[in-house]
Amino acid sequence: MATAVETEAMRRAITLAARGLGATSPNPVVGSVILDTAGQVVGEGWHQRAGGPHAEVHALRAAGERARGGTAVVTLEPCNHTGRTGPCAQALIEAGIARVVYAVADPTPDATGGAATLAATGIDVEGGPLMEEAARGNEVWLTSVREQRPFVLWKYAATLDGRIAAADGTSRWISSPESRADVHRLRAEADAVVVGSGTLRADDPHLAVRGVQGDFTQPLRVVVDTNAKVTRDARVLDDAAPTLIAVAVDADTRHLPETVITRLPRAERGLAVPDLLADLHARGVRSVLLEGGPTLAGGFVAAGAVDKVVGYLAPALLGAGSAALAESGITTIGEALRLDVTEFVTIGPDLRITAYPRPIRPASTEEN
Amino acid sequence: MATAVETEAMRRAITLAARGLGATSPNPVVGSVILDTAGQVVGEGWHQRAGGPHAEVHALRAAGERARGGTAVVTLEPCNHTGRTGPCAQALIEAGIARVVYAVADPTPDATGGAATLAATGIDVEGGPLMEEAARGNEVWLTSVREQRPFVLWKYAATLDGRIAAADGTSRWISSPESRADVHRLRAEADAVVVGSGTLRADDPHLAVRGVQGDFTQPLRVVVDTNAKVTRDARVLDDAAPTLIAVAVDADTRHLPETVITRLPRAERGLAVPDLLADLHARGVRSVLLEGGPTLAGGFVAAGAVDKVVGYLAPALLGAGSAALAESGITTIGEALRLDVTEFVTIGPDLRITAYPRPIRPASTEEN
Ligand SMILES: NC(=O)c1ccc[n+]([C@@H]2O[C@H](COP(=O)([O-])OP(=O)(O)OC[C@H]3O[C@@H](n4cnc5c(N)ncnc54)[C@H](OP(=O)(O)O)[C@@H]3O)[C@@H](O)[C@H]2O)c1
Ligand SMILES: NC(=O)c1ccc[n+]([C@@H]2O[C@H](COP(=O)([O-])OP(=O)(O)OC[C@H]3O[C@@H](n4cnc5c(N)ncnc54)[C@H](OP(=O)(O)O)[C@@H]3O)[C@@H](O)[C@H]2O)c1
Repeated sequence: MATAVETEAMRRAITLAARGLGATSPNPVVGSVILDTAGQVVGEGWHQRAGGPHAEVHALRAAGERARGGTAVVTLEPCNHTGRTGPCAQALIEAGIARVVYAVADPTPDATGGAATLAATGIDVEGGPLMEEAARGNEVWLTSVREQRPFVLWKYAATLDGRIAAADGTSRWISSPESRADVHRLRAEADAVVVGSGTLRADDPHLAVRGVQGDFTQPLRVVVDTNAKVTRDARVLDDAAPTLIAVAVDADTRHLPETVITRLPRAERGLAVPDLLADLHARGVRSVLLEGGPTLAGGFVAAGAVDKVVGYLAPALLGAGSAALAESGITTIGEALRLDVTEFVTIGPDLRITAYPRPIRPASTEEN
Repeated sequence: MATAVETEAMRRAITLAARGLGATSPNPVVGSVILDTAGQVVGEGWHQRAGGPHAEVHALRAAGERARGGTAVVTLEPCNHTGRTGPCAQALIEAGIARVVYAVADPTPDATGGAATLAATGIDVEGGPLMEEAARGNEVWLTSVREQRPFVLWKYAATLDGRIAAADGTSRWISSPESRADVHRLRAEADAVVVGSGTLRADDPHLAVRGVQGDFTQPLRVVVDTNAKVTRDARVLDDAAPTLIAVAVDADTRHLPETVITRLPRAERGLAVPDLLADLHARGVRSVLLEGGPTLAGGFVAAGAVDKVVGYLAPALLGAGSAALAESGITTIGEALRLDVTEFVTIGPDLRITAYPRPIRPASTEEN
C-alpha cells in the first residue's frame, strides 16, 4: 500500500505531468517526485518535451544525493528501453532509490519491464495508486498506444438550443472571448487540428494557436476536403503552422502545393475516417482536436472515433440554424451516444462541459 | 441601514416565503420574521395559501407579547388594504412593533401605502435590504402584476447537441428519472402547464403532477390546439386536474366537452400568444410552465413571452431529430436571444441550467 505521503506526492506528480501537455508528443506526459528517507520532497520533475530527459531524470537531478535510500513517485512505470535518453530504471538504480511507486503500467511493448528490472535489483516497487487519475492525465498517449490511432477530442460551441450558426449562416461569435481563448489552449495541447471543407468554405479559419503562453508546438492544420476545393488563398495555407489537406485519391490538386496534400480512399460520405486517422498517426500525430463542423463531427461519431467531447454552451437561443452535430448514424433514442460528464464549469459567460462517450445503454421505459 | 441581524432575518424570511410557492397564487409569496428588542427571533411565518393569513400575521401570532417593541422583517411591503384577511399594517401597529424592514415595495395599486401608514404612526420603516433576492423569489407575482399576464417559465429537455427527439421521433426518455421528478416540482409550482398540439399528438402527455410532497394545487393543463384536433380519449381530458383546450374561434369542437374549450383569435401561426396569456390571466393564472414542444416555444420566444428558461441537458448525442427550439423569428447571430445564467447544477446524470432572457447585445467582432 502506498502511504498517505506517497499518494500526496503522486497527486503532485500528476499535476507536474500535465505541464508537458502539448510538447511531449509522441511521448506520454510524465511527472515525478522524489521523497527522501524521511518522506520529505527533495526533487520534482516532468517530461518537458519529446527528446528531452524523462521526468525521473529531472527529479533525480533536483534531488541529488538526497535521493539515496529514498522513494521515487512517478505517474508512469519507469521505462526499461534505451531510447533517445537511456532507460529510467537504470537511472533510479544508480541514484540509490530504495522504493518506486508508479500509477500506470507502461503498455508499450519495448518499454515494459521497468518495474521488473527495478524489483530484480531489490528495489521495493509498487504500481497502482491514483491509477485512474494518472491514466486520464495520459489519456492521449494511452489511447494512441492502445488504438494505434490519434486520440480525438471533439470540441463544439453552441447555443443552449444546440445551434452553431444562425438561420443565415452567421456564427461569429456564438461563444465568448474567454471560451475562444480556451479553445486556443486546446489547440496548443493537440498535435493536429481538424476541420471539414464546409467549415473552411464558411469561415476560412486560420486554425493556428494564438495567445497561449508556455511550451507548445503549433499543431498540424488538417482540412478534410475530398475534392480539393480549398483555394490557394485560404488562410490555413499560410506559414504560421504546418498544413495538410486530405483529399480523395482522384482529386484534382493542381492548384495546391503538392507538399500539403495527402491522398485517401473515398468513403460512402467524403473520406474514410479510419484512413484519415491512420495517415495522421503515421505522421506522428497522437492527438486530434476535431473542431468541426457538424457534418464532419457526425462522420467521426459514426466511425466511433470520438474519445472526448468539450462543449462550450453560450447562454443564448436561436431557434434556427445548424445543430452542433449532424448525421451520425443514430436513428432512434435507444441508440443515442451516452456520455459521462466529468467536468462542468463556467468560462466567462459560457458553460463548458467535458464528457466521455460510453457504451450505449438501453433507454428506460418509465412513464412521463 | 438594516443591521446584520436584520439582513440575516431577511434571508430567513425569503426562505420561508418560498415554502408558499405553488399554493398562494394569485397572491405573492411572503415570509416574515419577528425580532424582539434584543434582536432574538421570536416568531416566523409565511403566507401559506391564497385566502389564508398573511405572513406577518402568522409571525406575530408566533411571537405573541414578545413582539412588542420589536422589529418585523418581511419580504414584501406590508399590505394596506382590507382583503380577505385585513391589512397587515394594522396588525403590526396593534402588536406594538417598533420597526419594520421590508425588501420589495408592493406595486399593486390597492395594496401600496403600507409603509406610509406604518410610518405615520411613528414606526421606523425601512425598505430595500436583499431586494433583488426577494424580488427573484417573487418573480412570478411581480411579473404578473407588472405585465398583466402570467409569468412564463419555458422548460426543455435536450441532448448536448440540442435535440429533443431522435430522427424517428422517439424521445422517451431523453432525460433521467431525477430530471423528470424535478419537472413535476416545477409543475406543482405553476398555475398552468402548457403544451402545443404537436406534443399532444406525439406523446399524449398527462401533464398532472405526480410524486410531489406538500401543499400544492394541480395546475390547469392547457393544450394550444388551433383546430381542436385533440381526441376525446386524450389523457389530458381525464379528471386528475382541470384542463383547457385553446382553439380558434371557428374551430369545430363538437367532439369535446364545451367546458374545457376556450376560443381565441387565429394568428399568422396558430393562435396569438398574447391573447392566450390574457385569457389565462383572466382565469387567475399567474404562472405558466411552458413544456413545449419546440414549435410552440418558438411562438412564445417570438412573442417575447418567455421570462425564464430551465433546460435539462442529458449527457447524450443524437446528431439528428428536432432541436429544442424551433422558428422564433431570429434570423442572424446578432439577434440571438441572450440569457443570464443564474444556476448550473447536476440533477442525477443530467445538467440543469436556469437562465433569464436579457436585452439583445450586439455581437462581438473579434478574430477567431
Ligand atoms: N461552433 C462551432 O464549434 C463550429 C466549429 C466548426 C464549424 N462551425 C460551423 O459549421 C458550419 C460548417 O459545417 P458543415 O457541417 O457544413 O461542414 P464541415 O463539417 O466543416 O465539413 C463537412 C464536409 O467535410 C467533408 N467530409 C469528408 N469526409 C467526411 C466524412 N467522413 N464525414 C463527414 N464529412 C466529411 C465533406 O465535404 P467534401 O465532400 O467536400 O469533403 C463534408 O461535406 C459553418 O457554419 C461553421 O461556422 C462551427
Ligand atoms: N424534451 C422536451 O422538453 C419536450 C417537451 C415537449 C415536447 N417535446 C417533443 O416535441 C415534439 C412536438 O413538438 P412540436 O414542435 O411538433 O409541437 P408543439 O410545439 O407541441 O406544438 C406546435 C403546434 O402548436 C400549435 N400552435 C398554436 N399556436 C401557436 C403559436 N403561436 N406558435 C407556435 N405553435 C402554435 C400549432 O399547431 P395547431 O395549428 O394545430 O394549433 C403548432 O404546430 C414531440 O416529439 C415531443 O416529444 C419534447
